[in-house]
Amino acid sequence: MTRTYRALSAYARTTATIESVARLAGWDQETYMPPGGAESRAEQLAALASIAHERKTSSQMRELIEACEQDRELTSDAESAYARSVHEFRHDFDRATKLPGDLVEELARAASRGQQVWKQARKANDFAAFRPALEAMIELTRRKAECYGVPRGGEPYDALLEDYEPGATAREIEAAFSPLRDRLSAMLAELGKGEHPDESITRVKIDPARQHELGLFVLKAMGFDLDAGRLDTTTHPFCDGLGPGDTRLTTRYREDHFTGALYGTLHEMGHGLYEQGLPKADHFGTPLGDAIGLGMHESQSRMWENMVGRSLAFWEWLLPYARKIVGGALDSATPRSLYAATNTAKASLIRVEADEATYNLHIMLRFGIERAVFRGDLAARDIPGVWDETFKQTLGLDVPDDARGCMQDVHWSAGLLGYFPTYALGNLYAAQFFEAARRDLGDLDAQFGRGDFAPLLGWLKTNIHAHGRRFRAGELCQRVTGRALSHAPLMRYLEGKLRPIYGV
Amino acid sequence: MTRTYRALSAYARTTATIESVARLAGWDQETYMPPGGAESRAEQLAALASIAHERKTSSQMRELIEACEQDRELTSDAESAYARSVHEFRHDFDRATKLPGDLVEELARAASRGQQVWKQARKANDFAAFRPALEAMIELTRRKAECYGVPRGGEPYDALLEDYEPGATAREIEAAFSPLRDRLSAMLAELGKGEHPDESITRVKIDPARQHELGLFVLKAMGFDLDAGRLDTTTHPFCDGLGPGDTRLTTRYREDHFTGALYGTLHEMGHGLYEQGLPKADHFGTPLGDAIGLGMHESQSRMWENMVGRSLAFWEWLLPYARKIVGGALDSATPRSLYAATNTAKASLIRVEADEATYNLHIMLRFGIERAVFRGDLAARDIPGVWDETFKQTLGLDVPDDARGCMQDVHWSAGLLGYFPTYALGNLYAAQFFEAARRDLGDLDAQFGRGDFAPLLGWLKTNIHAHGRRFRAGELCQRVTGRALSHAPLMRYLEGKLRPIYGV
Repeated sequence: MTRTYRALSAYARTTATIESVARLAGWDQETYMPPGGAESRAEQLAALASIAHERKTSSQMRELIEACEQDRELTSDAESAYARSVHEFRHDFDRATKLPGDLVEELARAASRGQQVWKQARKANDFAAFRPALEAMIELTRRKAECYGVPRGGEPYDALLEDYEPGATAREIEAAFSPLRDRLSAMLAELGKGEHPDESITRVKIDPARQHELGLFVLKAMGFDLDAGRLDTTTHPFCDGLGPGDTRLTTRYREDHFTGALYGTLHEMGHGLYEQGLPKADHFGTPLGDAIGLGMHESQSRMWENMVGRSLAFWEWLLPYARKIVGGALDSATPRSLYAATNTAKASLIRVEADEATYNLHIMLRFGIERAVFRGDLAARDIPGVWDETFKQTLGLDVPDDARGCMQDVHWSAGLLGYFPTYALGNLYAAQFFEAARRDLGDLDAQFGRGDFAPLLGWLKTNIHAHGRRFRAGELCQRVTGRALSHAPLMRYLEGKLRPIYGV
Repeated sequence: MTRTYRALSAYARTTATIESVARLAGWDQETYMPPGGAESRAEQLAALASIAHERKTSSQMRELIEACEQDRELTSDAESAYARSVHEFRHDFDRATKLPGDLVEELARAASRGQQVWKQARKANDFAAFRPALEAMIELTRRKAECYGVPRGGEPYDALLEDYEPGATAREIEAAFSPLRDRLSAMLAELGKGEHPDESITRVKIDPARQHELGLFVLKAMGFDLDAGRLDTTTHPFCDGLGPGDTRLTTRYREDHFTGALYGTLHEMGHGLYEQGLPKADHFGTPLGDAIGLGMHESQSRMWENMVGRSLAFWEWLLPYARKIVGGALDSATPRSLYAATNTAKASLIRVEADEATYNLHIMLRFGIERAVFRGDLAARDIPGVWDETFKQTLGLDVPDDARGCMQDVHWSAGLLGYFPTYALGNLYAAQFFEAARRDLGDLDAQFGRGDFAPLLGWLKTNIHAHGRRFRAGELCQRVTGRALSHAPLMRYLEGKLRPIYGV
């Protein structure tokens, strides 16, 4: 490490430290803050955000980056970790300084107003009432994309993707999505001919305190460090890496749906293991200590939730312990009955309630619409029609109303355009990395069956977590799995699991 | 309010908002932070402290204060709330800018090192090992007092008091302490001839979860707003007013000492009611939204803990509810047995375990030593001898060793010189204000007996909380009670309660 890089990373670490207190305040807001603290909390978050933004766009930051860029010792090997890090520092700085202040403010106001309008409009099932807010948000987002600038040979949507999935392009994503869409639809039709598993075992009643204990047991067994993290309860589960040594997970409990809480915990734990695996002790606040993007983050949560947590071997391992922890509720359960009950695939209307397989179809529908909008091929007023038609085509269901159709998600009203594809990218990356891990580590099922999750976690740490943002997601995928991102591993995984369960 | 004042208070509010996030981080550190977060938390606190200090001593802050001082509309009536507030703003700014940066750093280092040395030395009962650290801290504190400047006609110790009890002087404090010391010693000797109450009822076993419920019940009944606050568990109980609408209390539970937790909760609640009573919505971050000082803060905690919570009427009210909440443990208790058991007075060695009456003797001993040191009348090496001699004189006990003598407290090693007297000042203010409240509100016991605490709380809000720091403690005491601070109300209160209990 050179003197120039040390100076840059020390400055950036302080900025990240200030942001990490804001994250703590955000965590507290969802967990323990009394309602009376809400207004003051908003002031606190605004004050910290303003300080952090000032530092991120300051002339001092610019000079520190420039000094690194001009430091031959640091940048002569463009592929070295530090040179890559400086490149990412520059990327972030340019992005942060490209948006004029008034546009940032307008976007924030539109997002706040948009969410309120959306809530009302969804309740009233009134797309016409939502449309002006949606159109305003699309227009502002279009201006944002123009400020960022469209990459050579790309399209405006690529500029938006950059906020969530750096380096990704709409064309590449569509190349993976397109065959996935067809194969999933075909598989769903096939499964429809088979027998849907009995899900009743997931509906037994289990005291939330016992469920919490079960969750902690699984966290420990899978290697989540509870001395450097916590598990709490919130309305909407999340994971927040507050900084080095402090990663917080939340879940929610329903007495009659213990698998909901369990898989929620596993999902957030996957995010949490990534956060704990990042080399923050040395690189906190710099690209080398940071996650690659939302898709890669989601791949970690989906892998632990689905590829590990919904395997037969997982239930073979967990059931004896679960019986001890939760009391008699699981007396009649078998690993196979739990395995079948937690692996269903059936079209449904609402994304957040969708199963592992159909979920991707929900996402691809949204991606297609967003992309068409920013290509100028689709106007806001035509979204409901396109939504319903595509839904029927790919998921086979009639959409009864816009509230359960194109108005079901908060994202568009909040200005999160370009975010949706990362959910499905996460599933694709998860499956492709999981295949590579299996290739490297041998019989993963035998390992899971005896509660040995350390090899997989170690593999993820070495191959993914340890690099921070040194590589872009697609690049890392190529390096580790030997191939570009593809629909094939996910389809192999889903078909290999679901066809036997459905007997088709 | 003028434009100049609005600008100043907006700037100060942002500074306070940043500090309030630091308080949240401090609260989290004691409650929910996993151990792995400790290092990162220290970085967070340091970053925020540095930002806040910069703002508090900035040229912008100076200019905003000057603009207010020159604003005739604001300052023409020097006794008006806003003029007073500007005066306090100036006071704080001058104090904050009077200490050179290197002295602040040296003090922080000496405090950190001093506490480590003290921990070891206390364990080894080795005053000689502690002495160099103590001497260094005294020397640095002497320099601090010189930087602050000794008020006209005062002594160096007054400059130290200013950090904790603004406007107080050693001479005034001694004028109240001196007769208190004599009267307390005499009363203790008297009580020694009577019968010490049976304390066994305080040692029944009660599940901590039930104790927590009892604490919440009392908080609600006494008017602590749990929609704008919380009660959690920590090793060392505290109250933290995090900002408008968010005041957090903590306590600790021992299964076989429910009154310990209960009075701990009442004590912190007293602090919390003051925080909730301050007009923060309008004046947060300005002197008008801030507490007067540590003595006044302690008076609020002591009043609710002792004058209210250790009254017979309190137990007459609470016992029937407590029986329902805690189960059978209190079946044999009566209001009178609980009243007697929670009102004992007996000399003991350790300050933090001392009862309501003897506690003041512990404090006055420390005050006397601190004052003598800063007058130049006492050297560090002579502290143990003076300590033991004074202890024998006033509390009647032989001090067996320095660990249980002059090395028992963390304060001196941490540089908190001038802090101790505020504990006893709190008791004095509490008693004097409580007498005034009784004069204004009539039969407080009848009110407490039916669980009606609203009149007292309302009186405190109006007469104390609502003013923020508009008045100094002594000034407010004179305004509200009609007299300067005196030992007499506290002695009347203690003797009136303890003599009948001891039968002397």
